[in-house]
Amino acid sequence: MEKETARIEGFSDGVFAIAITLLVLDLHAPEIGIVKTSSELLAFLRSEWTTYLAFTLSFFSIFIMWVNHHKIFKQIYSRNTGIMFANGFILFLVSAVSYPTALLARFFDGEASNIAVAVYTGIFVLINISYNLLWFIASHNKKLLRPGITDSAIKKITNNYLYGFPTYLIAFGISFQFPAIALAINMILLIFWAVSSGKIKVAQE
Amino acid sequence: MEKETARIEGFSDGVFAIAITLLVLDLHAPEIGIVKTSSELLAFLRSEWTTYLAFTLSFFSIFIMWVNHHKIFKQIYSRNTGIMFANGFILFLVSAVSYPTALLARFFDGEASNIAVAVYTGIFVLINISYNLLWFIASHNKKLLRPGITDSAIKKITNNYLYGFPTYLIAFGISFQFPAIALAINMILLIFWAVSSGKIKVAQE
Amino acid sequence: MEKETARIEGFSDGVFAIAITLLVLDLHAPEIGIVKTSSELLAFLRSEWTTYLAFTLSFFSIFIMWVNHHKIFKQIYSRNTGIMFANGFILFLVSAVSYPTALLARFFDGEASNIAVAVYTGIFVLINISYNLLWFIASHNKKLLRPGITDSAIKKITNNYLYGFPTYLIAFGISFQFPAIALAINMILLIFWAVSSGKIKVAQE
Amino acid sequence: MEKETARIEGFSDGVFAIAITLLVLDLHAPEIGIVKTSSELLAFLRSEWTTYLAFTLSFFSIFIMWVNHHKIFKQIYSRNTGIMFANGFILFLVSAVSYPTALLARFFDGEASNIAVAVYTGIFVLINISYNLLWFIASHNKKLLRPGITDSAIKKITNNYLYGFPTYLIAFGISFQFPAIALAINMILLIFWAVSSGKIKVAQE
Repeated sequence: MEKETARIEGFSDGVFAIAITLLVLDLHAPEIGIVKTSSELLAFLRSEWTTYLAFTLSFFSIFIMWVNHHKIFKQIYSRNTGIMFANGFILFLVSAVSYPTALLARFFDGEASNIAVAVYTGIFVLINISYNLLWFIASHNKKLLRPGITDSAIKKITNNYLYGFPTYLIAFGISFQFPAIALAINMILLIFWAVSSGKIKVAQE
Repeated sequence: MEKETARIEGFSDGVFAIAITLLVLDLHAPEIGIVKTSSELLAFLRSEWTTYLAFTLSFFSIFIMWVNHHKIFKQIYSRNTGIMFANGFILFLVSAVSYPTALLARFFDGEASNIAVAVYTGIFVLINISYNLLWFIASHNKKLLRPGITDSAIKKITNNYLYGFPTYLIAFGISFQFPAIALAINMILLIFWAVSSGKIKVAQE
Repeated sequence: MEKETARIEGFSDGVFAIAITLLVLDLHAPEIGIVKTSSELLAFLRSEWTTYLAFTLSFFSIFIMWVNHHKIFKQIYSRNTGIMFANGFILFLVSAVSYPTALLARFFDGEASNIAVAVYTGIFVLINISYNLLWFIASHNKKLLRPGITDSAIKKITNNYLYGFPTYLIAFGISFQFPAIALAINMILLIFWAVSSGKIKVAQE
Repeated sequence: MEKETARIEGFSDGVFAIAITLLVLDLHAPEIGIVKTSSELLAFLRSEWTTYLAFTLSFFSIFIMWVNHHKIFKQIYSRNTGIMFANGFILFLVSAVSYPTALLARFFDGEASNIAVAVYTGIFVLINISYNLLWFIASHNKKLLRPGITDSAIKKITNNYLYGFPTYLIAFGISFQFPAIALAINMILLIFWAVSSGKIKVAQE
């Protein structure tokens, strides 16, 4: 049975690659008028730590989302309109990540950090929903899946994405009061996905 | 018979993927000097609704254009200079979409909204013409098409793109007087394309 | 004999697709503070004609360069360090095109138009040289070429790129005195390449 | 034995292509208000030499990194989590190159040139480490490598990247005192990589 999803995967890979590389455009060099001496430049670079943090966090978040995107599409062999648009919804959110990243970079170290972190964790709640939606559509119509996939493999993947949802929701909820903790949860979830993406692989064999 | 259009499709996919991802560059984080507190950031984010509307509308417009681009190229097996340049014209317009998007984002909620919407609906009139042109060139030379394609399948596709033309033209025409209605028509057309792209699929089998 | 150049072509296609799509970033929407009413927006859009001209010219220039890049690589089957770096030089110049484009957009309609046009035509002189260099390296080592390519086919391609050189040089030379004429020559050359790229195709069969 | 790394290579190629093409966004055309006449434009273009230098240096640095990336992945047939994330680390640094490039462009010709060059050479130290890390993970698990690769071929590649490390470190170390010399070392290393990438090729056969 031929895989029908090659073009969707190719296009999606393109969007992931562009979105991850565009993040750097929010690292701005200072104006020459404002920074002149070595110590001024050093001080500027140090003051930009929130920008580096946001850049690094978003880069590896998109990277792991890309890994997971492929893990899911390895199990999907056919496509229908539902899969096309669930995937479009994922790409929409992935391409938008640089906006909350810029908000986080500018406002994490200030009075508005709770709103900045809430928007940032909020987009990952939405992304989690979009991955669950894609997998829900695919797994509820076994004709779309890789022939020979076992029910336990399907369930493992289902659980993997479903368990993420309440955790992202909690991170979102507490960002209004404790933005730093909410961001820390986000980082821990990132490590969880990096590790769990290895575990799903086992399920495929 | 081998398909000759692989490289055109690959290049076009690249342009679509980049154009759709570059849209995010018009979502600007506010300057730290202007926005400081949580309530100021919230107020800023709320005031940006036209930007989010324009971003969302253009993202899914390009996404559906990409789906339709592939639907058409699934039927085209050979290429000539006409197809190369009709396709170049499509890519030119697709890559330009972010400019009317930025105009819409900035001016939809103001005195100049009719001009902003007219330019925005205007580019979709041109894009509709470019798709009609590509299909006209391809379908009037059956040697370029997929072997075994039926006349009724050709006609279905022809009608699908042709019917869009007057509707986009009407949207363009009324944007000068009723920009909000014109934009609403644009959104309805977007849903029509999303649905109809499923219908064309049937015609291919 | 297997073609060894697939990865160079894929990477080059990516750079061409990105360079052509990034051009749009120099189409700037006006600030809301400066433009408010419909007639102000219309007046702004009209005043931007040099930007649209530069965008259109550069888009189709890169598009035709991409077509020609593929025409050449259809004849190249093996690669060596020379081909890698001649191609790298082409990509360097192609990716840089947006800079002279921005200069042309801003200064064509003003006192500095001769310098702007000279830089703009100058980069096309360099690009012509880089294509000649690539083809010189490839065609002087027949082991690198498509097996069975005829000498007359090789010569046709050689002449095609070689004849462009003096014409670009003339356009460059007169831009200092007659920038508008130099730009017009550039446009005529664009049409020449569009047409001639069809002619080379004949040579391949 | 099938190569498992096609998707990693495709995604990486995308990031390299985008990162190399985005560099041009730091070539800014001057404002019309500041530059008006031909001689002012010429003077502006001349004053931008550090920008051109940084652009050229970074373009060919990323280009050669891309060549080397492929050289390494030609030897890797299987992947594990370590390879995924070592590669992710490479892509992270490659996509970030445009930031030190912008710092170099703005500050090389001024009081803060030592810090600008230190950051610029610093990122290449990190990139060298990331390549060594990728190759270390791959070469210490022969099951991941191309079947039939010889120990001497492995060693040649190991040495090639390992020898770069102290040299980049020296360039980094002296940039604080002699930024111009440090940058010159960087350029010489660039030429070394260009030449040595030809030599590794021999090792593959």
